[in-house]
Amino acid sequence: MPDTLHPDGFTVSTGALPSSRKIHIGGTLHPEVRVAMREIDLEPASGEAPVRVYDSSGPYTDPAAAIDIRRGLPPLRAAWIAGRGDVEAYHGRTVKPEDNGRRSGERGADLPPFDRAGRPVLRGKPGAAPTQLAYARAGIVTPEMEYVAVRETLGRQQAAARDGESFGAALPLVVTPEFVREEIARGRAILPANINHPESEPMIIGRNFLVKINANIGNSAVASSVAEEVEKMVWSIRWGADTVMDLSTGRNIHDTREWIIRNAPVPIGTVPLYQALEKVNGVAEDLTWEVFRDTLIEQAEQGVDYFTIHAGLRLAHIPLTARRVTGIVSRGGSIMAKWCLSHHRESFLYERFAEICDLCRTYDIALSLGDGLRPGCIADANDAAQFAELETLGELTKVAWDHDVQVMIEGPGHVPMHKIKENMDKQLALCGEAPFYTLGPLVTDIAPGYDHITSGIGAAMIGWFGTAMLCYVTPKEHLGLPDRDDVKVGVVTYKIAAHAADLAKGHPAAQERDDALSRARFEFRWRDQFRLALDPETAERFHDQTLPAEGAKSAHFCSMCGPKFCSMKITQEIRASAAEGMAEMSEKFRAGGGDIYVRE
Amino acid sequence: MPDTLHPDGFTVSTGALPSSRKIHIGGTLHPEVRVAMREIDLEPASGEAPVRVYDSSGPYTDPAAAIDIRRGLPPLRAAWIAGRGDVEAYHGRTVKPEDNGRRSGERGADLPPFDRAGRPVLRGKPGAAPTQLAYARAGIVTPEMEYVAVRETLGRQQAAARDGESFGAALPLVVTPEFVREEIARGRAILPANINHPESEPMIIGRNFLVKINANIGNSAVASSVAEEVEKMVWSIRWGADTVMDLSTGRNIHDTREWIIRNAPVPIGTVPLYQALEKVNGVAEDLTWEVFRDTLIEQAEQGVDYFTIHAGLRLAHIPLTARRVTGIVSRGGSIMAKWCLSHHRESFLYERFAEICDLCRTYDIALSLGDGLRPGCIADANDAAQFAELETLGELTKVAWDHDVQVMIEGPGHVPMHKIKENMDKQLALCGEAPFYTLGPLVTDIAPGYDHITSGIGAAMIGWFGTAMLCYVTPKEHLGLPDRDDVKVGVVTYKIAAHAADLAKGHPAAQERDDALSRARFEFRWRDQFRLALDPETAERFHDQTLPAEGAKSAHFCSMCGPKFCSMKITQEIRASAAEGMAEMSEKFRAGGGDIYVRE
Repeated sequence: MPDTLHPDGFTVSTGALPSSRKIHIGGTLHPEVRVAMREIDLEPASGEAPVRVYDSSGPYTDPAAAIDIRRGLPPLRAAWIAGRGDVEAYHGRTVKPEDNGRRSGERGADLPPFDRAGRPVLRGKPGAAPTQLAYARAGIVTPEMEYVAVRETLGRQQAAARDGESFGAALPLVVTPEFVREEIARGRAILPANINHPESEPMIIGRNFLVKINANIGNSAVASSVAEEVEKMVWSIRWGADTVMDLSTGRNIHDTREWIIRNAPVPIGTVPLYQALEKVNGVAEDLTWEVFRDTLIEQAEQGVDYFTIHAGLRLAHIPLTARRVTGIVSRGGSIMAKWCLSHHRESFLYERFAEICDLCRTYDIALSLGDGLRPGCIADANDAAQFAELETLGELTKVAWDHDVQVMIEGPGHVPMHKIKENMDKQLALCGEAPFYTLGPLVTDIAPGYDHITSGIGAAMIGWFGTAMLCYVTPKEHLGLPDRDDVKVGVVTYKIAAHAADLAKGHPAAQERDDALSRARFEFRWRDQFRLALDPETAERFHDQTLPAEGAKSAHFCSMCGPKFCSMKITQEIRASAAEGMAEMSEKFRAGGGDIYVRE
Repeated sequence: MPDTLHPDGFTVSTGALPSSRKIHIGGTLHPEVRVAMREIDLEPASGEAPVRVYDSSGPYTDPAAAIDIRRGLPPLRAAWIAGRGDVEAYHGRTVKPEDNGRRSGERGADLPPFDRAGRPVLRGKPGAAPTQLAYARAGIVTPEMEYVAVRETLGRQQAAARDGESFGAALPLVVTPEFVREEIARGRAILPANINHPESEPMIIGRNFLVKINANIGNSAVASSVAEEVEKMVWSIRWGADTVMDLSTGRNIHDTREWIIRNAPVPIGTVPLYQALEKVNGVAEDLTWEVFRDTLIEQAEQGVDYFTIHAGLRLAHIPLTARRVTGIVSRGGSIMAKWCLSHHRESFLYERFAEICDLCRTYDIALSLGDGLRPGCIADANDAAQFAELETLGELTKVAWDHDVQVMIEGPGHVPMHKIKENMDKQLALCGEAPFYTLGPLVTDIAPGYDHITSGIGAAMIGWFGTAMLCYVTPKEHLGLPDRDDVKVGVVTYKIAAHAADLAKGHPAAQERDDALSRARFEFRWRDQFRLALDPETAERFHDQTLPAEGAKSAHFCSMCGPKFCSMKITQEIRASAAEGMAEMSEKFRAGGGDIYVRE
């Protein structure tokens, strides 16, 4: 169970997962690279090697790490960033009261502003393009790229045989740093890494890599505290979130974000429009390019790694939503639609897109092109509005690439199963294979309270078809704000979807964990089953509800069938008696086409 | 919330679901047919018609029904069965102590044996074939078939436009009684309806009908009471189970089954091998055809509607499992494998299959051909053992049909996504389109505690591809016995999978409920969203966790985004101001290709 820390009354979940150790694998091109991963130790008597797994949880699960939320995480990448010689420190923008949504005289947050002392604000030098895309195009393999290569292969030099249907994805047997560079250079993968977020452990989002998942956190006007949001970030990466989006819309947005980023080992994404709208008191018509641009700079300096920008929603698209059952369901999309209609002019996000790209290049912020017109129900899936916007997103992808800016594309939403693949195919074709990042999709509308499942089905499928990152949906979707348990269920459900997609695509190493768990199951190593599970705590708790006795952890049956009906026990008995030498019978079976129960 | 009854300390869940009424639609060919369904009333101010939904819950959700567990349900089909003139009452087999697994002197169950007074034991007259398959082949549309036709179309005479990919399934726009007859005659659908289970409401399992789900219940050696099992049956149909399998393996198997069947409005399935094994004290080698046959007759007379029989597992298949990671994971399969190896002879289920069919014909019991060699993990999916058995199941299907016996085929199990379709394609080809009935499949092994989700993904997909019935998996799978909450989560998850499959196949009426719920969502009719949800209680509870006030039920926002950021609210505002007449702007938008926010 996780330990917790309480500096200033602050609580975050720390401690290793059961029977797990943090290990670090060194780089070759860049010996200073030390890639963190998790190794799960199994019962010594089993003769099984430890199982190595991808680990997004950062130092929080490393008992050797000194966690102090007030100081933030160590700036892992600071020397790499500085070492490239193309960035400069400067006196950043001064924080204004409206950045935190405060009216005069109002009380502050539950925590004071994060003390950023010693962490300079950086930007690219004039004319420089300090982006991973620019480096990749120049043939440079950065330490970040090597980190990702080691991380994706879990330090393996060779991989198991491939078995899958990849729909055109080209998964290499071993991910080399050069392969990472090529994929980034081609725009087929992104490595979100703001130069002002040196605390992040590099990760990659692309169709030819492991499928990633994102967890959304953030307060709303109905509130939750800064401390709660930091813990939600730590909690969601503990269970496997690869990136976290801070979608806060209430007060203290600026301070909350600073606390999150300084303590986040994963890339942080935002929708800057939300904060911009707060600054104009929630009146969409009052939004201006100046307010928006100032917000981008504010967040860029803090270290946001990717921005969702709804620049693809154009004035002409809006009438296409007129007959929809649920209209426009993207918050950003509806805000921009209202702005466009009120002013009766083209969206400033579209018109100023090149300027947005210039700004993103300066800090290496990846763009996540928002799907403001995504369908909000089964009836609206794959309609003219949705695909018109996608076409615009394809145009904008090329503009971003022209500016050396990394870019991915957001996708739906609510889509019945038979219309999912068309989304993937169109996205690949229209957006030049830039990574796709979808929300689900939910495959039916009739199960509020279970939308992690309705969307997990769609997510697994679209992940298989080629989506690079899946944005989680919690059981509270459509109903309320997720609490801690909801976040965990959402993350675990999406880890299932992403892993199922990796298996089906034929990722060379994906099946190792399945096989290790299945062997543990067959051999009645109950503790190893729990350890290898995505959620060891729930697996053990469920088992113990019917058979809590310690002895049941080594019993050769469980409460489902009892000892007499346990098929695995019977199979083991058969194998054992075969091994004891039913010689002549074995002979006959061999004649029938195979050996009997000889364990390899 | 469900009411409960307590005769003799017995508790079952009764009462209507929120805002729902039980309605009955009459037959035409058979005016005595009255098909039960559920209508959900929506807010009167909405102008929305009530939404009619398929209802498997039986009289328990009908406040007008007098439920008395001790008397059982009314024998709905008794007159239809008798009216055909091809069955006779007889003095059935005498119940033996070993039917209940009791040793001498042992205490009985928590309930006395069910008093069957007034319900005769029936069998087909000599030479008769009182099966729905025989009737269908003879061109007879039975009341059962008309019941099913009305039920599948919810009494509609016409349907919405179709939109889907059915992979060769031929879903009619309106299901006629004649269509039902043809599908049964062709063996492509089954209507499980033992003549000794007149209490059941007819339902159909076939690729050209709505996808069905099964819930497993039953005690194990670790126990649970008779009363608990009856309530589990009532509870699982309340949430949507279309059939229930009683997989009891502990004591009081006979009495538990009798209580369940007499009170079950859905078909009941069993695996007779489990009880037969109890009768030989759990020693697989001691099983004999005589004990097994006697058990079939025992269960046939009680009214079991379908038998899982593992007759496809042949001696020669067993060596094919030798290199598997998890061997044989079907309980029935492992028992028969042990029997075959011990005696070194062919399985008596295979050798006596024609006799089994004769017996099933006498009572109209459908066969569910068990997949004793289904894969128990990702590594073993689609292997030689599995497909060798499937080939045998194809042979046996034809034998069953030759005997006028209805038959469906069981399928896996654990299968990664890219190998799911091959299962469906092979089953259709090898088994002449007999209905497929799968357990999940689970698309990964690494998430014990969440296997309703890992399997729900596979279930939705294989249901789309053509599987007729999906056997649920609960969160406790691989870990322990499901409790009441687990059963509900399993059923709801599988209703999601089945409905998602119906949508994707293009079932003409499937989308109506989605659309009604989406309209309610767009119009902020929170109560209607809850009412239309598969699980209204959970939806309302989740909403109330953040906004419990009564006023929030009509609020034009929720806790997720708060009022300022609610995209639906903004879209409504846009539509409203457009409707108020921004005339010249509208003109311009129309020039752009469409009307603006004119609600049809």
